[in-house]
Amino acid sequence: MAFLNDNYLKLKAGYLFPEISRRVKAFGDANPEAAKRIIRCGIGDVTEALPDAVVKALHRAVDDMGTRARFHGYGPEQGYEWLRRAIAENDYRAHGLEIADDEIFVSDGSKCDTGNILDILGHQNRIAITDPVYPVYVDTNVMAGHTGEGDETGAYAGLHYLKCTAENGFVAEPPTEHVDVVYLCFPNNPTGAVATRAQLEAWVAYARKEQAVILFDAAYEAYISEAGIPHSIYEIPGARECAIEFRSFSKNGGFTGTRCAFTVVPKSLLLSTASGEKKPLHPLWQRRMTTKFNGVSYIVQRAAEALYSPEGKAQVSALIAHYMGNAKILREAASSIGLRVYGGINAPYIWVSTPNGITSWQMFDRMLNEANVVITPGSGFGAMGEGYFRISAFNSRENVEEVARRIKAIKW
Amino acid sequence: MAFLNDNYLKLKAGYLFPEISRRVKAFGDANPEAAKRIIRCGIGDVTEALPDAVVKALHRAVDDMGTRARFHGYGPEQGYEWLRRAIAENDYRAHGLEIADDEIFVSDGSKCDTGNILDILGHQNRIAITDPVYPVYVDTNVMAGHTGEGDETGAYAGLHYLKCTAENGFVAEPPTEHVDVVYLCFPNNPTGAVATRAQLEAWVAYARKEQAVILFDAAYEAYISEAGIPHSIYEIPGARECAIEFRSFSKNGGFTGTRCAFTVVPKSLLLSTASGEKKPLHPLWQRRMTTKFNGVSYIVQRAAEALYSPEGKAQVSALIAHYMGNAKILREAASSIGLRVYGGINAPYIWVSTPNGITSWQMFDRMLNEANVVITPGSGFGAMGEGYFRISAFNSRENVEEVARRIKAIKW
Repeated sequence: MAFLNDNYLKLKAGYLFPEISRRVKAFGDANPEAAKRIIRCGIGDVTEALPDAVVKALHRAVDDMGTRARFHGYGPEQGYEWLRRAIAENDYRAHGLEIADDEIFVSDGSKCDTGNILDILGHQNRIAITDPVYPVYVDTNVMAGHTGEGDETGAYAGLHYLKCTAENGFVAEPPTEHVDVVYLCFPNNPTGAVATRAQLEAWVAYARKEQAVILFDAAYEAYISEAGIPHSIYEIPGARECAIEFRSFSKNGGFTGTRCAFTVVPKSLLLSTASGEKKPLHPLWQRRMTTKFNGVSYIVQRAAEALYSPEGKAQVSALIAHYMGNAKILREAASSIGLRVYGGINAPYIWVSTPNGITSWQMFDRMLNEANVVITPGSGFGAMGEGYFRISAFNSRENVEEVARRIKAIKW
Repeated sequence: MAFLNDNYLKLKAGYLFPEISRRVKAFGDANPEAAKRIIRCGIGDVTEALPDAVVKALHRAVDDMGTRARFHGYGPEQGYEWLRRAIAENDYRAHGLEIADDEIFVSDGSKCDTGNILDILGHQNRIAITDPVYPVYVDTNVMAGHTGEGDETGAYAGLHYLKCTAENGFVAEPPTEHVDVVYLCFPNNPTGAVATRAQLEAWVAYARKEQAVILFDAAYEAYISEAGIPHSIYEIPGARECAIEFRSFSKNGGFTGTRCAFTVVPKSLLLSTASGEKKPLHPLWQRRMTTKFNGVSYIVQRAAEALYSPEGKAQVSALIAHYMGNAKILREAASSIGLRVYGGINAPYIWVSTPNGITSWQMFDRMLNEANVVITPGSGFGAMGEGYFRISAFNSRENVEEVARRIKAIKW
């Protein structure tokens, strides 16, 4: 009798975004006219066309694939050398950070990588996550059997939750207890918070003392606008010995539908075997990628490479400036009606306290019904997200200005 | 102290194809002139350009992505509805097989899917694999902790091996013992063998009696040339209750570097919870895909869709005819010098006994050194592959004719 993985049955109903889609659809079915006015500031999905440098590179790569002499079959599972080099050179070595080309692993998404990384970690690790948090970190640990049952707030027994509140600026300090694996995401999804150098130094010091590993999600790195905020965990001395970094082209190049990302696994990062021997993690991730992955489409890797050309860089800067202009408008609109507003300065997300103590899903329903605007309820990101909501700045300027007007028009 | 996954340390040195690359590189470094003559018939990678219908669809999709109004961000993780419908309609319903659109899950590769499927299965399952076998089935079970240590032949304690030999036509019968999960691959990689309807009926009957699940890899389905050979496990009544099917666009559309595949999980397939309750597997795979995957690139899904157009189908047929013409030439060359030859009729692989009792790797080295031809040593696919080698028919006609000449020229 074949068995399924019972851990999946512990997962709470629906991943956050499918649940949002369900409610939006139900609203649209019941209110077909109002549905036409809906503006989506929920899921963090880019809205603008791919940069021109990328489009040109894609066309060239397609022509390669249509020409026998330039056709590409299986590529290296970890990514083409030219792309790994462009990444290591531009995102790290140009900033004085020593990352070798073969410490870069190109993949089809940071969501995949942050989930799949558990494949190479032991089941005995004690896992810490922030609260609120990107749900994938939690759910993939539930699926892997690293937790007990969940409670009504979405919290699972066996995970160590690090509370992020307005009081700590939504940046958790290292715990007093021992943990083995900690997920950090800066700029943060959903709160838009960033960690200072001193805060990241404290985390690296903790990880080195506890021999823990930091899973550092830097998918929104390109949105950092303030000087002095670290863009990479590797800006902190000692991080090469305790951290894996995840980055993505989804939010800088607008690749959410094109699919390319990368993960940095330093060769100097050692973890323990069950018997206490220290071994490098790099060969394990290398083995995982070669055995369970076949590399990113050649065409898409050429597209990612184009982001590092002078034209590509300029076009990415323009995209970021557009979205951050939106963020400023949304921040100001929410502030102007007396809501407490966080984020939106170094991240494309605005994190807002709900008014009058209503819940996150009540706020979701009010915004949908009264403003026909889709936001993301904070409680979908964890118990500490209750009483907040997230507005995404990924939209056209026209839509954002309309959202700002509608927010101001509601009688709170 | 963070722990790594010790199971990875059980894996034998290098996945097969990296080891081949290493030997070829070493030969080339030592023999730069001979290296220029090398013809690769090792890894099963296509060599011909993408079909014209695909190239056109790719260019159109790239233009979509470069145009704000037609830009696509995140798509459904399981694949766009239009592609799922095209697959279900053309590959199944057109052949009288009832597969619903939402039983199709589009992914970036069958290698990924056959590895990732273990995520949703319980660790208590008894796993059966054929020998020889596509190494990914074995290695992913080792990584997941389903085995003990490996021995010198590459066999792992805890797996149930089903021997495939010349005597049984390289098609294993169901075992007399109970197993929970069985991997079947037809047309087979590496042997090129196909299973008859009666043989698959015996497997489905076994799976239903034992409440086992069949993981059916049909990546080479398009190469079946003989009438009466099943193309899908779902041609066998009852298979919807016991089988998952994996298919790929790698070998029909030439997508090895473009990356698209799909997996069929019927909603009528029930597995057992730890407490013995029967539950459908479909929602678990749905949950895995939405949580740990972000869908295949929009551009690539449009490319896959084009394979189902009338032009696409005709162009795929021409590609298959080309490779199978190669297979015929290679079969005849190996036969003409007295080698025992299998496969190559319903599959792009020719499976050949080594002459004079030499080992598979000895044969690999002789072919590399004396003919400058790269083949795949049979022992790389398992203990029962010892004494065999695989020749891939994926090549230009010119190269295949040259390989045939060189094979005939060696003094065996």
